[in-house]
Amino acid sequence: MTDNHNPRETSAVRRPVGIFDSGLGGLTALREIRRILPGEDLIYFGDTGRVPYGTRSHETICHYAVQDLRFLLSEADCKAVVIACGTVTANALPLLQSAFSVPIIGVIDPAAKAAVRATKNGKIGVIATQSSIASGAYDRALAELEPEVSLISRACPLFVPLVENGFVDPDDPIPLLTAERYLADIKASGADTVILGCTHYPLLKGIISKVLPGVALIDTGEEVAHALKTLLDTEEPAEAGTGRTGDVQYFVSDETQGFAAAASRFLGLDITSKAPLGEVRRIDIEAYSGILNP
Amino acid sequence: MTDNHNPRETSAVRRPVGIFDSGLGGLTALREIRRILPGEDLIYFGDTGRVPYGTRSHETICHYAVQDLRFLLSEADCKAVVIACGTVTANALPLLQSAFSVPIIGVIDPAAKAAVRATKNGKIGVIATQSSIASGAYDRALAELEPEVSLISRACPLFVPLVENGFVDPDDPIPLLTAERYLADIKASGADTVILGCTHYPLLKGIISKVLPGVALIDTGEEVAHALKTLLDTEEPAEAGTGRTGDVQYFVSDETQGFAAAASRFLGLDITSKAPLGEVRRIDIEAYSGILNP
Repeated sequence: MTDNHNPRETSAVRRPVGIFDSGLGGLTALREIRRILPGEDLIYFGDTGRVPYGTRSHETICHYAVQDLRFLLSEADCKAVVIACGTVTANALPLLQSAFSVPIIGVIDPAAKAAVRATKNGKIGVIATQSSIASGAYDRALAELEPEVSLISRACPLFVPLVENGFVDPDDPIPLLTAERYLADIKASGADTVILGCTHYPLLKGIISKVLPGVALIDTGEEVAHALKTLLDTEEPAEAGTGRTGDVQYFVSDETQGFAAAASRFLGLDITSKAPLGEVRRIDIEAYSGILNP
Repeated sequence: MTDNHNPRETSAVRRPVGIFDSGLGGLTALREIRRILPGEDLIYFGDTGRVPYGTRSHETICHYAVQDLRFLLSEADCKAVVIACGTVTANALPLLQSAFSVPIIGVIDPAAKAAVRATKNGKIGVIATQSSIASGAYDRALAELEPEVSLISRACPLFVPLVENGFVDPDDPIPLLTAERYLADIKASGADTVILGCTHYPLLKGIISKVLPGVALIDTGEEVAHALKTLLDTEEPAEAGTGRTGDVQYFVSDETQGFAAAASRFLGLDITSKAPLGEVRRIDIEAYSGILNP
């Protein structure tokens, strides 16, 4: 019987998990995946040449997402792919799941489940990019899980540029005033749980906690890491054994200069420790076909 | 002799002027060109699908710039092209001028000349995107014009997202505190003239004036419009007669929805007046060859 066996299945344990994001925010999810599943080989693509996605049209985001996934699958025989990006998940998850056979998980369902578990008063807030909020994906996910919760959502388009430009100090009035303005309606609603619906936002946790004291903040990176573990535990191909530390390969679509410094912030590493991040390579993402250049 | 005459030259007066920018900020230059040269037909391309350019690598900016110009020249037999973008001018003007035969003017030289005319104490500040500042293009332009001036430059990476998200009210503490922080060194230097080296920045004039009272602010859109008039007055093909109002065609690379509202802000139009902006069409900019897909 063994000669009918697909050789891929026997080596499935060493196939990597693919992770992609519009930029480097998805590294906050990669960090959690490394923590929970240290044995997995990981391959990360950050579309730094075309970031941000959150202000683009639905069609453009779908086009980019198909190109991103096609790159990952051309680079490695991934056993699962994590969309470490709220905007791509909100706009393109069903499209990607119907177009590709690899198991794909996004950040919205795991975060919605965690929010429903966390809330005590049934009032949940969600903050994300314009495109994610406009998609209604969080509303749908929560309504399916628990029709009794009430959701208040708010686009925070300045949060990504604030994070990318290092405005993350909780004592800095610029991000603090911005957070106070964006979060005023959520605060007034009395929500006891807020989903940080963009993988950049965990870097603003200190500021958001200051504006919304006592509110449970759901980190999509943490939740998608748990969802990945559940997937790998319950389905073939199985999770890599914990007896080894997996490799990480990084790919970006703009120049690699400055990657280590920026990536270290998202990964929570001390850059001065010279902790090896692993290799980073630049690829031409426009060479991969999407929905606009099939 | 006339049968050797190029028919294009005789109709040169009706050939349009091309204008392009990474997004919609270049409309502040278009507005000035309309004011000074109302008879010219204009064709504008805003690369809204790939904005912003200012945080991207030099190579990527050059690639995009070649694609942008190639689109304009494929769409119309432009008699001149204005790069209404500080970042593209800083990174790609020499490349574009050597690769294309159409007269091309950028925003840096006209702004540098105006700054040298305006300064009384010889201290000039320049604010622009990270990429423009890193290019050193303003330093070179000013050193060539007037070696005696001293220049203090500062990248203001949060200004473009602030403008794009409507944070432009001079009474709003968020953009005001951001401007105070970015402009502190220029203020301390005693510069009496500051170049707004990005076509988004004129929308922050009220805020910048509040932080730098009495300082002359050089608007690159105004200066490039004057430079275009000089070019058309002195060279073939000549400026279109003022007896007519030229047409304007707009092209963008992301969806056209929301264009009228955003464009009206940059053009200084009252959107409620329903002043016709002209037609806007979406094109696929990645279909045009650049330096990475020659």
